Amino acid sequence: MSNPTLLILAGDGIGPEVMNEVKRIITWYGDKRDMPFDISEDLVGGCAYDKHGTPLHDDTMAKAQEVDAVLLGAVGGPKYDDLDFSVKPERGLLRLRKEMDLFSNLRPAQCFDALADFSSLKRDIVAGLDIMIVRELTSGVYFGEPRGIHLEGNERVGINTQRYTESEIARVARSAFELARRRSNRVCSMEKANVMESGVLWRQVVTEIHEKEYADVELSHMYADNGAMQLVRNPKQFDVIVTDNLFGDLLSDAAAMLTGSLGMLPSASLGLPMANGRPKALYEPVHGSAPDITGQGKANPIACILSFAMALRYSFDAGAEADRLEAAVEQVLADGARTADLLGPEGGSPISTTQMGDAILAAL
Amino acid sequence: MSNPTLLILAGDGIGPEVMNEVKRIITWYGDKRDMPFDISEDLVGGCAYDKHGTPLHDDTMAKAQEVDAVLLGAVGGPKYDDLDFSVKPERGLLRLRKEMDLFSNLRPAQCFDALADFSSLKRDIVAGLDIMIVRELTSGVYFGEPRGIHLEGNERVGINTQRYTESEIARVARSAFELARRRSNRVCSMEKANVMESGVLWRQVVTEIHEKEYADVELSHMYADNGAMQLVRNPKQFDVIVTDNLFGDLLSDAAAMLTGSLGMLPSASLGLPMANGRPKALYEPVHGSAPDITGQGKANPIACILSFAMALRYSFDAGAEADRLEAAVEQVLADGARTADLLGPEGGSPISTTQMGDAILAAL
Ligand SMILES: CC(C)[C@H](C(=O)O)[C@@H](O)C(=O)O
Ligand SMILES: CC(C)[C@H](C(=O)O)[C@@H](O)C(=O)O
Repeated sequence: MSNPTLLILAGDGIGPEVMNEVKRIITWYGDKRDMPFDISEDLVGGCAYDKHGTPLHDDTMAKAQEVDAVLLGAVGGPKYDDLDFSVKPERGLLRLRKEMDLFSNLRPAQCFDALADFSSLKRDIVAGLDIMIVRELTSGVYFGEPRGIHLEGNERVGINTQRYTESEIARVARSAFELARRRSNRVCSMEKANVMESGVLWRQVVTEIHEKEYADVELSHMYADNGAMQLVRNPKQFDVIVTDNLFGDLLSDAAAMLTGSLGMLPSASLGLPMANGRPKALYEPVHGSAPDITGQGKANPIACILSFAMALRYSFDAGAEADRLEAAVEQVLADGARTADLLGPEGGSPISTTQMGDAILAAL
Repeated sequence: MSNPTLLILAGDGIGPEVMNEVKRIITWYGDKRDMPFDISEDLVGGCAYDKHGTPLHDDTMAKAQEVDAVLLGAVGGPKYDDLDFSVKPERGLLRLRKEMDLFSNLRPAQCFDALADFSSLKRDIVAGLDIMIVRELTSGVYFGEPRGIHLEGNERVGINTQRYTESEIARVARSAFELARRRSNRVCSMEKANVMESGVLWRQVVTEIHEKEYADVELSHMYADNGAMQLVRNPKQFDVIVTDNLFGDLLSDAAAMLTGSLGMLPSASLGLPMANGRPKALYEPVHGSAPDITGQGKANPIACILSFAMALRYSFDAGAEADRLEAAVEQVLADGARTADLLGPEGGSPISTTQMGDAILAAL
């Protein structure tokens, strides 16, 4: 049997730096746990634009469709701010999501005990927090047509279309219910059904799927504005949250920030099963390309490393190996290893990106 | 000269209870400050539906167009949850906003010193917080066409349209810049220009208005997901935030919750100047109809009272009188007056809605 395949798209900014540490972890799994991966690498985002004039070359897109999983670092940077909309670094990422049909974006918002004091929220509000936001990732206002800027008389008009079909809602709802069954068995669905018909349909379909297929899971509904409030007020009330592409973008970022562990949070974007039974999948840290600290060895590689742990769990059916990697991360944190972003106002001396990688390898 | 006119739409749930206290304050201004108002009252929301089968009767709409300002309590309740979309209580409120063309929704997120410990955020993150969110209120995905649920083959499809014209963006941007000049002179504009063309146009127009008319104001731009994060991380970095209808809905609710003063926050929705020079205007508390405590005399009337203070400031050019009312509220809080929602985990004995009204009148 051939080795599972990974495509690494390190991208821009701190992407390559944090991905270097992930590559060492992957090598460790090959050497020490007899889990060898075949790795290829390519460009996405600004660096792809620099080389090819497009943030994602067709060949790269084709490769992404063939591998077992894609690992992505980060895209974007000030250098690309003035590029035309159609070739901005983000378009590369959005094309991957859309063409791989990665409809279910799993964003854990987890508060690491060693970092609870880092949150802007009070410790008791966030300590032990562990929620999972399931964001629809291939539809909604991100991709709906018509879209664009046109003239009406001599006025410019900007248009985007929020569009959801029944089956698009159903499949992401199922993925949330499945996850809930392996967690605390509760799903809260968020939309603006009081204002938007797409939200009315969202609520209807989630309710139908629940009644027919997942009646054992506890389901509640919340308007997304109230959801934003409740995440700030008392995030621990939630287990799994399922929501659309745009609400998911804002709510998952707010939730990530609550934990105080922003530089630590991974994500998985999953699609339909391939011929080999594995889902199409892309894994990436929640943080961005952090141009301000690029090339200084300061970046925290943990979010990217934990994204690989998610790959072990969701693509390679290696939950125990994912647990092992996550435990190693918890341990180095408990032992006091801190990259610059993890130092509180008290200060202390930070370790480098590579040193954090070393520490995690040692803990493994 | 005839008295200025107010239309009171107390609405559902705790709306009538909190509005009663506002009426006493209005009477006080007539008696003691020689500022008599002519008041009429009518129905909006569920109670209007109960009586007329519509959440806003045409006659009420016509009255709202004629008065100098509308004061609204709250709409909605579980009794109306299963109503058809087109007659839900919220539609009454949305119709008022749209037909009065109230494009600029001012939502102060202010942390009252006496309540800083109430926030789920650490005291130093929120103490002294005073930001103003200016939300576009008459356009965007709330009102864009086409919209609705239809069948494609045998699948239901839900659609809404995010649509902004240049002039819609320009007028709300101007209102944000004007406000900033009277505050700390900084505006941060939020959209998703990296994903949505309507956001690209938003950013362009805000930038153009800034360059041409408000170059003295400091302007920055932020993606709305990052905005949600930054509000949680360090809300005091902001002065005025300007954003669209939907982002404004989520971001202003999150910001309100940060302050710990949710039951305290007012809002103003302003439109174009009328013949008498006053803007079309509607004032309402940020909180909802709170069906769980309706009719128990527990509701906090302060948000509604402070909404009247905003009316004094923005409709009746009586800034000093608004200051007086706000100072009275601050004083009763400093003196320890607390409705049930303002009691911390330590407890204490709450005062009633009416007693809070009494206290504020006494402080005046
Ligand atoms: C980079 C950007 C296009 C992207 C999004 O809006 O989805 C990012 O914010 C995210 O959440 O992954
Ligand atoms: C009640 C609802 C229609 C409304 C909105 O979504 O605008 C509310 O959430 C608000 O923010 O005033």
